[in-house]
Amino acid sequence: MDANNLQIFSEFLGTLILVLLGDGVVAAVSLNKSKAQGAGWVAITLGWGAAVTMAIYVSGFMGPAHLNPAVTLGLAITGDFSWGLVVPFMIAQVLGGIVGAILVWITYLPHFAATEDEAAILGTFATGPAIRDYKSNVVTEAIGTFVLVFALLAFGQNTFADGFNPVVVGLLILALGLSLGGPTGYAINPARDLGPRIAHQILPIANKGGSDWSYSWVPIVGPLVGGALAAGLWMMIPL
Amino acid sequence: MDANNLQIFSEFLGTLILVLLGDGVVAAVSLNKSKAQGAGWVAITLGWGAAVTMAIYVSGFMGPAHLNPAVTLGLAITGDFSWGLVVPFMIAQVLGGIVGAILVWITYLPHFAATEDEAAILGTFATGPAIRDYKSNVVTEAIGTFVLVFALLAFGQNTFADGFNPVVVGLLILALGLSLGGPTGYAINPARDLGPRIAHQILPIANKGGSDWSYSWVPIVGPLVGGALAAGLWMMIPL
Amino acid sequence: MDANNLQIFSEFLGTLILVLLGDGVVAAVSLNKSKAQGAGWVAITLGWGAAVTMAIYVSGFMGPAHLNPAVTLGLAITGDFSWGLVVPFMIAQVLGGIVGAILVWITYLPHFAATEDEAAILGTFATGPAIRDYKSNVVTEAIGTFVLVFALLAFGQNTFADGFNPVVVGLLILALGLSLGGPTGYAINPARDLGPRIAHQILPIANKGGSDWSYSWVPIVGPLVGGALAAGLWMMIPL
Amino acid sequence: MDANNLQIFSEFLGTLILVLLGDGVVAAVSLNKSKAQGAGWVAITLGWGAAVTMAIYVSGFMGPAHLNPAVTLGLAITGDFSWGLVVPFMIAQVLGGIVGAILVWITYLPHFAATEDEAAILGTFATGPAIRDYKSNVVTEAIGTFVLVFALLAFGQNTFADGFNPVVVGLLILALGLSLGGPTGYAINPARDLGPRIAHQILPIANKGGSDWSYSWVPIVGPLVGGALAAGLWMMIPL
Repeated sequence: MDANNLQIFSEFLGTLILVLLGDGVVAAVSLNKSKAQGAGWVAITLGWGAAVTMAIYVSGFMGPAHLNPAVTLGLAITGDFSWGLVVPFMIAQVLGGIVGAILVWITYLPHFAATEDEAAILGTFATGPAIRDYKSNVVTEAIGTFVLVFALLAFGQNTFADGFNPVVVGLLILALGLSLGGPTGYAINPARDLGPRIAHQILPIANKGGSDWSYSWVPIVGPLVGGALAAGLWMMIPL
Repeated sequence: MDANNLQIFSEFLGTLILVLLGDGVVAAVSLNKSKAQGAGWVAITLGWGAAVTMAIYVSGFMGPAHLNPAVTLGLAITGDFSWGLVVPFMIAQVLGGIVGAILVWITYLPHFAATEDEAAILGTFATGPAIRDYKSNVVTEAIGTFVLVFALLAFGQNTFADGFNPVVVGLLILALGLSLGGPTGYAINPARDLGPRIAHQILPIANKGGSDWSYSWVPIVGPLVGGALAAGLWMMIPL
Repeated sequence: MDANNLQIFSEFLGTLILVLLGDGVVAAVSLNKSKAQGAGWVAITLGWGAAVTMAIYVSGFMGPAHLNPAVTLGLAITGDFSWGLVVPFMIAQVLGGIVGAILVWITYLPHFAATEDEAAILGTFATGPAIRDYKSNVVTEAIGTFVLVFALLAFGQNTFADGFNPVVVGLLILALGLSLGGPTGYAINPARDLGPRIAHQILPIANKGGSDWSYSWVPIVGPLVGGALAAGLWMMIPL
Repeated sequence: MDANNLQIFSEFLGTLILVLLGDGVVAAVSLNKSKAQGAGWVAITLGWGAAVTMAIYVSGFMGPAHLNPAVTLGLAITGDFSWGLVVPFMIAQVLGGIVGAILVWITYLPHFAATEDEAAILGTFATGPAIRDYKSNVVTEAIGTFVLVFALLAFGQNTFADGFNPVVVGLLILALGLSLGGPTGYAINPARDLGPRIAHQILPIANKGGSDWSYSWVPIVGPLVGGALAAGLWMMIPL
């Protein structure tokens, strides 16, 4: 496997683990009869933070571990990543998101059958707004992703002890979830939302409803705009 | 940009991120229809701890990342910081607090409209006492900030692995919130309280009440006194 | 003591600590009148994560600290561990699990007497399914252990700052518990389940019911299959 | 100040911070009208873990930071600490515990006045059993302290990245609290219990009841026995 293909495989595998563990914690907390049912927002945000940390460890020795199209776009804008790999990375990330979501479905199969709440089922795949207001929702996603990409760029100015970087990125995801996740469930990553939404559409899930495609552009556009703005502002800092 | 201006900008940016993420978690937990509503004190203290960690990473490569007038004052007293930069730092910190709070308001815009509890709305900006007793409240804030500044000075006597210091400071904020935050909501930072209180005053927030200016001196005086006492006591330790 | 015997003793001691602290947190949260009763899933998953971290610190200076037959099997398959020590390691791990569970019983003795729920008592020893469906339960355990062993192998491709590795493994256990633990309580370790189940069988526990041996093969077969699959897939990655 | 006196002062100061932050989180969660009231066992165990971490940072640059008579005794038995300093260290630790508890009382002054539950008030100072059974309670305290001291001795066989050791000790305290704290509230430290109990006796606390001296020997004897046993067993490991 040549170096580029290994990197693209790394994005697929890392995003798969990211969504398996990330959507997994939403399933754990939301689905009926799960031992974690009702464990709440602290469980969800800790779970997503740890999911990102583990996804980076599992894929980062083979590639840069963006695992997020908004990060890939931002790093291409700042010149830290090759434009030629942007589209292959994004495709690999979405495919990883699809397969990760399928594995969540398999892991929790009897619990999907035991759950009748269509919104809870969709929520274990894709994000949705607490208050549907597309303009505000897209701004919230853009702000969250702005902080994500800006902080990742700032991490590049710090030096970290061996193996410590993925833990700090996980803490960042924890911070973003706790602080900015209330209105839209912090997709802050188009692949994390679109991939599982596609899986929700195609899988024969018991009791599922619609996949809410009318909202699906928000967690794509918001993060891409936020990530691009962060990259642009970053370049204005005199370093 | 000369070195001093970069440091002042760093204080502005760091305090902005600190308040965006810190007040953000209060908004997440307090405002109606937020997915994190009711997540409780563990969520709030984890969120503030992670907020401080991230604020230091994002600003610390451009300056000392005090992000708190009580810290700036304490370090000036011990001789670790130039008196000439004290006032510009404090102004930048308060301005950062104002802009951070404005961004929280934008992030949670529909949720402010859905919330009618004036105290909850003010609480997402500034701190307030659980039991209003100015003398006791100012002592509580002074004790909390004493531990904060004394511990930060002690951290200077330890050596840390690369990139680890901001995580330890975040753990300190977590400890202070969990242990000493019950009576006053642990401002322990005049800029974190005054900046957002000014934002609350000037923003056209739906359903807002008064900005409780009669309490506003407590989270300014308490932290400055506590920080100064910590610096004074620190200098008495024979090192 | 020769080097092999020290390693075997290390597995016994490490698994003992793992189960004492791991089953301990389940006892703390589940048994009547415990100060931690009702502390919930976040407490349980934090407790298991910290238990694994501590078990590795306490045993890892004497051996490789697998503390899990599925890990031992996986590392033998990849060639990272000697087949000749596989059976002695597994026996030591199960024995450690038995003694660890006995110590939990001693620690919480009056609380077992105060608890009448047979399922809660068995749950402080061994895992059980939220929805009994052997085929699905074994798949869930296999997926969880697949991620565990695959991630541990990936950690081997990272370098870690001194003493940091056990914390990262603990974060992995936290992630697995939060995200994939809802259906079966994440044994993901045959010794962690079989050892305590034997203890439950032989101890004169007040109010105990049956040891649910009909389920006992699931947390043995699922983890061993998942660990073996992870090892097999790992060897296909071109490194 | 000579080196021994600085070390003794370090024990006083460290235990003061330990109890201020540790008993502080119990006050935060237990006392009426506290913003953290009802935050539960996760808050308490996180708070105690972070308290120990911070106490070590604040005192560890001046001394060995035992902060616990059971640790001092254990290290004297293994030969890692001078017997001549054992009694001065223990006295300094208890004095630190007294002053730390007084500071908790000052910090939460109006909340003590607002709380009528005598057990809750005593619980913010000293530990008490969930089920009063002296023989079992002392065994539980001995087991917890055994793991504490044995793990601390094992940490000495590991090497840690700069500044990382106090965080690992904090994780150990978190693990012990979550897993073994349910029956007795995990004193696992005679100074942490006796010092605050003396403070409870002498302070003019509103609504206070008795200081439960009949139980007070348990969190002294149990930890000292457990720590001594851990030291003895440690010396039998062939290193």
